[in-house]
Amino acid sequence: MFENSGRTELSQFGEFGLIDHITRHIKLHHATTIKGVGDDAAVINNGETFNLLTTDMLVEGSHFDLAYTPLKHLGYKAVVSNISDITAMNGKATHIVVSLALSNRFSLEAIEELYLGIYAACDAYKVDLVGGDTTSSNKGLTINIACYGEVAKDKVCYRSGCNEGDLVVVSGDLGSAYLGLHILEREKRIFLERPDFQPDLEGNDYLIQRQLKPEARIDIVTLLGNLGIQPTSMIDISDGLSSELHHLAKQSEVGFMIYEDKLPIDPLAYQRAIDLGIDPTVAMLNGGEDYELLFTIPQADYEKLKGQPEITIIGHAVASGEGLHLISKSDIKHKLEAQGWKGF
Amino acid sequence: MFENSGRTELSQFGEFGLIDHITRHIKLHHATTIKGVGDDAAVINNGETFNLLTTDMLVEGSHFDLAYTPLKHLGYKAVVSNISDITAMNGKATHIVVSLALSNRFSLEAIEELYLGIYAACDAYKVDLVGGDTTSSNKGLTINIACYGEVAKDKVCYRSGCNEGDLVVVSGDLGSAYLGLHILEREKRIFLERPDFQPDLEGNDYLIQRQLKPEARIDIVTLLGNLGIQPTSMIDISDGLSSELHHLAKQSEVGFMIYEDKLPIDPLAYQRAIDLGIDPTVAMLNGGEDYELLFTIPQADYEKLKGQPEITIIGHAVASGEGLHLISKSDIKHKLEAQGWKGF
Repeated sequence: MFENSGRTELSQFGEFGLIDHITRHIKLHHATTIKGVGDDAAVINNGETFNLLTTDMLVEGSHFDLAYTPLKHLGYKAVVSNISDITAMNGKATHIVVSLALSNRFSLEAIEELYLGIYAACDAYKVDLVGGDTTSSNKGLTINIACYGEVAKDKVCYRSGCNEGDLVVVSGDLGSAYLGLHILEREKRIFLERPDFQPDLEGNDYLIQRQLKPEARIDIVTLLGNLGIQPTSMIDISDGLSSELHHLAKQSEVGFMIYEDKLPIDPLAYQRAIDLGIDPTVAMLNGGEDYELLFTIPQADYEKLKGQPEITIIGHAVASGEGLHLISKSDIKHKLEAQGWKGF
Repeated sequence: MFENSGRTELSQFGEFGLIDHITRHIKLHHATTIKGVGDDAAVINNGETFNLLTTDMLVEGSHFDLAYTPLKHLGYKAVVSNISDITAMNGKATHIVVSLALSNRFSLEAIEELYLGIYAACDAYKVDLVGGDTTSSNKGLTINIACYGEVAKDKVCYRSGCNEGDLVVVSGDLGSAYLGLHILEREKRIFLERPDFQPDLEGNDYLIQRQLKPEARIDIVTLLGNLGIQPTSMIDISDGLSSELHHLAKQSEVGFMIYEDKLPIDPLAYQRAIDLGIDPTVAMLNGGEDYELLFTIPQADYEKLKGQPEITIIGHAVASGEGLHLISKSDIKHKLEAQGWKGF
């Protein structure tokens, strides 16, 4: 099946390359499998509607740092990131199962804090925790959540349906979660050098909250439903706008033209980016973890959507051969790189 | 919600105690949640049938030792243990999502081996791999699989339906996986002391295979369906017969009388247990990882089931107040302990 021999380092691949390499060989057995690997969630035909299934693993040291992440927030975020994937299929998350591996460094009270966050997210999003697995690890904390949901058959939305000319839309604002992380990392470094130092997080509440306690945009799915708009493609922004645009482009076989002056950023995020010497546009394109929705709509739906406060049209789809570009504020055309967009 | 303060060590609880403590506070929001935490899988009403959802996490160092576990077998076993949980609901597993966290110690070829095992199990059990998450860890390998399946509404089988007088039945034989593990651990110890030593696994193939490449008993579910038998309760034997009997007893509010001379063991397993100085009955009661099915049936179904080669009746359910006991070969009544049964 696989044709390599010897030792090939994973670092040659990256996450998406590795997934492509491995999943090429999948054989499907069930006619009920409408969509397998390759979207925000799998789609399974249950007769009346489609079921959705997704999973997300968070590993201490790779995805979170308990030096500045309260366990309650971690539990909340772990649930939200899964709900966001179901939401990005235009669906509704209804059930989760939670697996935990933890070392004896964690006390009962620590696990309770984690579950208080999990339960808070379950209450906020009306999701039922229906199972899991709790086990020990030699070191650190790993959380895996699998999320189950559903979507009407005529409402399901993939990464692959965008057509040339469609408008590119994002919800909310971008880059704040990344700037929040930057501030938390900075305070941690200072704290490690000077343990008597009090962290200075004041005035950055919004950014810290966007990093530590993100929300899934189920309100946007409801809004689109109420407006009678069926997105042609959709994805949630977990890895950064630029990366997600490449996913839509690849699966829809289109290119994108994005306008820098349209990208939505919170005024505080803009100011902090300048303070920290970070290009605000880079934060928006590559920041990730905002869990906003990126979607495309037919131009004919523009009138239905315009004027909505939580919605910004940032560009349009072009022919695949034209590639992905950002038109800068100074009207210069920059290529959007798949992983990490190079600033001006 | 939780009333502790200070620091309580997890070791005071054990896995089941911790799960009970945490899940006591679950609030459910959906009428479609037929069964949440507390069985082999969650049960969700999808209209025509019930969907099943379960998850299982395997952590290097806690659940497997790559010194003697080929990655291909590990991938196979990770899938099988989930399918076994769906099977124990009298259901059929159809879809899985796989999460991996791995350190840069693993090469592409190692991950390919792991997936060859995952794909082999998917083919053997006609299960579709439809999603996952691949991420990095500082150390070691963690695999989480969530498994989705379905069961007819009138066929679903919980841990809770056993009645006084029901017969207690197991599939296949018990204790072999535990003895296989024992042999692998022994060879590893010898190898670590004398690296020039060749492992002596000859003549133990069946035991090693039961440990490294277990199977889920979907054939038993088919058999029961063909015989027209609806089990009153069912669970898969992952932690050992004694532990599983306690789960059935607790949730069905019954006791059990089990007969030592009825417990099914493979002749090779019996011989190796004696060779290794292990009480074969202890191996059967506490061994775990055999992934056989333990279930109960009404006495009226005895005639339908008797004479089936892969089925053994090992006892019967009694009133809850009578507790759980083993009647030894010498006709002495021993209490069956929840965790680890004390030998004679």
